[in-house]
Amino acid sequence: MLNIQRDSLGLRFRAIGERVEIEILDQRKLPDEEIWVAADTLDDMIQLIQQLAVRGAPLIGVAAAVASAQEAFRRLREGQGSRRFDQSSFQFRLQELRAARPTAVNLMWAVDRLDRIVKASSGEDSMIVANKLLDEAVAIFDEDVEMCRQMGEHGARLIQEGEAVLTVCNTGGLATVGIGTAFAALKTAHDQGKKIHVFACETRPLLQGGRLTTWELAKCGIPHTLITDSMAATLMQQGKVHSVFTGADRVSRRGDFANKIGTYSLAVLAHYHRLPFYPVAPLSTVDFSCPSGGEIEVEQRGADEVRGFVRPGGGVRWAPQNVKTFNPAFDVTPVELVTKIVLNTGSYTASEFQKLQAEGH
Amino acid sequence: MLNIQRDSLGLRFRAIGERVEIEILDQRKLPDEEIWVAADTLDDMIQLIQQLAVRGAPLIGVAAAVASAQEAFRRLREGQGSRRFDQSSFQFRLQELRAARPTAVNLMWAVDRLDRIVKASSGEDSMIVANKLLDEAVAIFDEDVEMCRQMGEHGARLIQEGEAVLTVCNTGGLATVGIGTAFAALKTAHDQGKKIHVFACETRPLLQGGRLTTWELAKCGIPHTLITDSMAATLMQQGKVHSVFTGADRVSRRGDFANKIGTYSLAVLAHYHRLPFYPVAPLSTVDFSCPSGGEIEVEQRGADEVRGFVRPGGGVRWAPQNVKTFNPAFDVTPVELVTKIVLNTGSYTASEFQKLQAEGH
Repeated sequence: MLNIQRDSLGLRFRAIGERVEIEILDQRKLPDEEIWVAADTLDDMIQLIQQLAVRGAPLIGVAAAVASAQEAFRRLREGQGSRRFDQSSFQFRLQELRAARPTAVNLMWAVDRLDRIVKASSGEDSMIVANKLLDEAVAIFDEDVEMCRQMGEHGARLIQEGEAVLTVCNTGGLATVGIGTAFAALKTAHDQGKKIHVFACETRPLLQGGRLTTWELAKCGIPHTLITDSMAATLMQQGKVHSVFTGADRVSRRGDFANKIGTYSLAVLAHYHRLPFYPVAPLSTVDFSCPSGGEIEVEQRGADEVRGFVRPGGGVRWAPQNVKTFNPAFDVTPVELVTKIVLNTGSYTASEFQKLQAEGH
Repeated sequence: MLNIQRDSLGLRFRAIGERVEIEILDQRKLPDEEIWVAADTLDDMIQLIQQLAVRGAPLIGVAAAVASAQEAFRRLREGQGSRRFDQSSFQFRLQELRAARPTAVNLMWAVDRLDRIVKASSGEDSMIVANKLLDEAVAIFDEDVEMCRQMGEHGARLIQEGEAVLTVCNTGGLATVGIGTAFAALKTAHDQGKKIHVFACETRPLLQGGRLTTWELAKCGIPHTLITDSMAATLMQQGKVHSVFTGADRVSRRGDFANKIGTYSLAVLAHYHRLPFYPVAPLSTVDFSCPSGGEIEVEQRGADEVRGFVRPGGGVRWAPQNVKTFNPAFDVTPVELVTKIVLNTGSYTASEFQKLQAEGH
């Protein structure tokens, strides 16, 4: 095993000897505190994913892969007697990892890649399998960095000099291990010298826009303004924004896509105001097994998130204690409201997106 | 002076002898605490209006009227020597009252009514003028109760048995001294035995929907669900709401109207989903001096409201400390997105609303 190290805005890991050390930036503490948390076991990582300390579809996939490699090395160190890799119990652990966030298709996709290695490991030595899993995790990391760069290139072509761009949730270096998805388009346009301005929707209920995107925008020196989600329509009405860029957590074959609650609202508003609307995601977010938006399952989250602002050790409730709430984590935007889908492979209108699939990508 | 007493959900006052006692429910402390604050002077009331302890266009108008009568009696008690009413200094105080919330047309309208009495009081005894002002304040109170009842009647006709209605901000007995504006429609439909369900938008940034409307809905026993503003579109997409009822802080001659930020967004979303959209307001909210929405001035409020949740003694900030914000108090909805304007005199399509004005109402 070589010494391997990778750093990103939200995840860093080192592999030395037979040990993988992982640290996660606890995104629940941002923007005021940057606290890194060690994820020493697969259970730690599952918990961090469930609690949204690790979030953002691509970052979750990378984090899951690295944690799986760590688990393989832990088993290797603790393995008594047999050095033979225990396929079935490892696959059981991978299933637990999948269940941590069932709508995150990147998580499924990363676990699938590891699962293929595990399946092919019949009778192999634990050390060999652990190293294969680590290589795969590193590959997933490096591919994500490269995909973000590509999404940034394709997305930035759609942004004009002097444009004001509206975005929602967090899609940057905290959501991926590269420069992000929708955020990559903004950062790349900014780095190309285009004088852009970003309006960030705060993104109730979990406020990823207010807490995280503003923090990243400041870190990158991109001029920006924070708004509540209810103000987006007024900005459009007043001609103060020119386009909308969002992430996408899961894209169906039809091009309909699931993303953070509030995205569909922006798509309708952009359509009414005749503004271009662009979801940005890696190709891995396209779920070819999902025909259309109607088949995307949306998780309902807890009522306390809507009753106030939830964060460990410092939340606040403002609504009546027992008020009933509706709290879907995601919404689904039909492809009819999309101007172009931006992937790492290029940007596509709905019909181009269909053709892309017919060509077997 | 007779003993006069009036009580409402958010304001109560008694006039005994030469003294007017006013108490205001501090709406910033709801829903957890019901704290009544004495408003002993006109300065107290101006401050309570500015701080949003008193809020809702009709309630502000009534509160201003009662506080003006109180001020006249205070001057009467403290007046040394002359019993002659001091017109010019009283008019100066009325101007200060106007400035407390410049976009609240009910405030202007209530102050206008008092101003007419003051103007007609040349050479009159202070006692007589004070009693006239008190009578006017009581009339404004009683008219508001009656207008709310009428808005409720007209609005409820537009709500079907079993309907789910979406609403925003707070428009009930905390915003008026009667049963409200948009809320009156919901309450009246409910009281008529129609099985309705209300979805309340939390209404960032000040969260009047989450804090106040939910509290009132519970008080009235109306089944309800709280959502974040960003979830309204999804409810419409899923067919879970059937109509939108909102208040209106100021209606122009054209029918365009200003209301709490987020209203315009709901109007566009309702239009896209082909759902009826009804602003509800007393006729006094129609500003005949304002030709169209373009002429409505919108106040920008402080950045801290968007950076977190502001309330005295218990707020929280989640965005970066110095992040720039956009925070218009209101937005403007064009009449094209309105199905019917509901007034206390009836409900009107855009063209009926034009005709109503031509007829000189």
